[in-house]
Amino acid sequence: MSLHVTLNRSAFLQSLRTTQKAIASKTTIPILTGVKVYLSQEGLSLTGSNVDISIETFIPADDEKANMQIHDVGGIIIQAKFLSDIVSRLDAPVFSMEVLENNQVKIVADKKEVLVNGIDMENYPRLPLVEQMNPLKMPVHVLTKLVSETVFSVSVHESRPILTGVHFVLNDNENLLAVATDSHRLSQRIIKLPNMAENFNIVIPGKSLKDISAVFPDEEEELEIHFMENQVLFRTDTIMYYSRLLEGNYPDTNRLIPDSFNTTVEFSVSEFRKSIDLASVMSHEGRNNIVKLEITSDGVKLYGNSPEAGKVEEELVVEKVTGDPLTISFNPDYMKDALRAFGETNIQIQFISPIRPFTLEPTETTGEFIQLITPVRTN
Amino acid sequence: MSLHVTLNRSAFLQSLRTTQKAIASKTTIPILTGVKVYLSQEGLSLTGSNVDISIETFIPADDEKANMQIHDVGGIIIQAKFLSDIVSRLDAPVFSMEVLENNQVKIVADKKEVLVNGIDMENYPRLPLVEQMNPLKMPVHVLTKLVSETVFSVSVHESRPILTGVHFVLNDNENLLAVATDSHRLSQRIIKLPNMAENFNIVIPGKSLKDISAVFPDEEEELEIHFMENQVLFRTDTIMYYSRLLEGNYPDTNRLIPDSFNTTVEFSVSEFRKSIDLASVMSHEGRNNIVKLEITSDGVKLYGNSPEAGKVEEELVVEKVTGDPLTISFNPDYMKDALRAFGETNIQIQFISPIRPFTLEPTETTGEFIQLITPVRTN
Repeated sequence: MSLHVTLNRSAFLQSLRTTQKAIASKTTIPILTGVKVYLSQEGLSLTGSNVDISIETFIPADDEKANMQIHDVGGIIIQAKFLSDIVSRLDAPVFSMEVLENNQVKIVADKKEVLVNGIDMENYPRLPLVEQMNPLKMPVHVLTKLVSETVFSVSVHESRPILTGVHFVLNDNENLLAVATDSHRLSQRIIKLPNMAENFNIVIPGKSLKDISAVFPDEEEELEIHFMENQVLFRTDTIMYYSRLLEGNYPDTNRLIPDSFNTTVEFSVSEFRKSIDLASVMSHEGRNNIVKLEITSDGVKLYGNSPEAGKVEEELVVEKVTGDPLTISFNPDYMKDALRAFGETNIQIQFISPIRPFTLEPTETTGEFIQLITPVRTN
Repeated sequence: MSLHVTLNRSAFLQSLRTTQKAIASKTTIPILTGVKVYLSQEGLSLTGSNVDISIETFIPADDEKANMQIHDVGGIIIQAKFLSDIVSRLDAPVFSMEVLENNQVKIVADKKEVLVNGIDMENYPRLPLVEQMNPLKMPVHVLTKLVSETVFSVSVHESRPILTGVHFVLNDNENLLAVATDSHRLSQRIIKLPNMAENFNIVIPGKSLKDISAVFPDEEEELEIHFMENQVLFRTDTIMYYSRLLEGNYPDTNRLIPDSFNTTVEFSVSEFRKSIDLASVMSHEGRNNIVKLEITSDGVKLYGNSPEAGKVEEELVVEKVTGDPLTISFNPDYMKDALRAFGETNIQIQFISPIRPFTLEPTETTGEFIQLITPVRTN
């Protein structure tokens, strides 16, 4: 038996490009620069993998757009980028792919004919098998929002590897919690799920999560989350996305979030972002990269300062100020990341003192989405 | 006297961004990371420079969009990228700029106030003065087309510096000739100009020309070309673009272009480009990066081959074939560059033998635009 199929070129390319998100063009394991192309009577699967993640896409035999004709089933490994470069240049709606002797693959569209040297499929590493009776389920957009609201706070330093991941916890209250912290700032999101899945407590590498919205483009599709010993699998009907898990205990972050405050300021996110953005242009020129917020009974002022380049000063538009006067300094890049995650809304920022972490929350909610930033002590 | 002006922010940014095309953010001459901002009663000029090119843009005092209010005239040097980062974040239609004591510049828009450390204008290098009675004139699009049709053939190697430039010659016939060659391929364009400018013979660095269409966005505007001893100036009413010239004698390229041929093939550029593009994906995997064209009485075939990766074969769609059979090999990247310069048209490719350079010309013209590629000898 050897693979022989005719199908729609753009359906194939779309599937291939999703799989390629798991394939590095340079790697120490050469076979992993390849994509495994496997055709059964059920359809065509494309598998790619690197040390962190694996992606398997599937085009069902009866997919209307793909319009697949299965002449013979089988499989082969082909250099992924090379295959994508070839197929994207075939310039015809339909093409065929056939494995000949010696693992050669004949690719034909109209008068264009390409022979590609493939590799025996048996050499490809196996993906873990998944059998979970009762997976967690949610629409794609719920997961991708959860990720985008937290993943930017993971640590980029390997000194504490566990902090390079996002901590996901499902507990008996049917609350799914996602939290990330690099020990300078923290992002935490809790969602309620009408779900009867088993409890879990895992840490997924931030790197693995960054591409997830690009891998699952259909936001309304239902997604299942399965777990194995050291892997997590996100899957829809046509896409399986595996990531390894981080081992170790995630620190208890609950105790970090304060619950009483002395000063509260309410901002429009979009206005405040513009002000922080300008001030950060100046602070980036300085050695410490900090901006200063000064809250008095007269109003709220933002300062950025660099001895070499100059300074910025702005009287901010605020929705509301309550509590004690306060002057506090912080890294504006942490603030920009946090604000970006809120979208267009109003938020309240709550402070205890110039040296204690402060929190950001949407004005209209209570505890579902909270971000925390540690200030920078000056003088 | 010190600069103080209020004007439209986007008009200023547009002018600044054009000037920035001459400003490197890192350079061994620190003052050249700055933009010289100079305000006279006539308007506001912004000057940027690097070792190869200089750009001066001008916003006239009566420019409607800029809506300039001149409070006081003067000048200052400000870090260009920093200024652009600041002004683009001011978030108001209008802003003001005022030079204070110690070369500090106060920039204000609504409630945003920025102080930037500037540098005394007197430290800025002077641009050459230009006085030419009778400059060459043409619409912007004539020059940018001339450049885009030739500049890709300049040499990227400094072993023969003169070949890194485009050779421009205006002679008594009122023919303006532009030619570029890296000694493997050559691009030559001749245009007739209803012009009485003085003859010239200059070589402009290819690097200087690559940005020219981005600097002059208005294609219909009239452009003047002025020469000084070692500089050329392209200017419109609001933009001056200086480039240094290359010194030395440009080789005689006329003798390189053959005038009799044994084989002619006529292609649609868009079809041929797609075929070359596919074949080059394969040839890039090989050591020699060549493709093979086989012209017989049965038709024309294109081959790409890589011992490691595979091979491509295609029966090409041709408009017309005349003359002797021929098999010839060449670098497909040179062919892609050449084809791109023709746009959507039909071309004829004319061959003498497998070891002699061949030419490409639009089918409908005679000698105004010709490209030449040297084949690769195989055996």
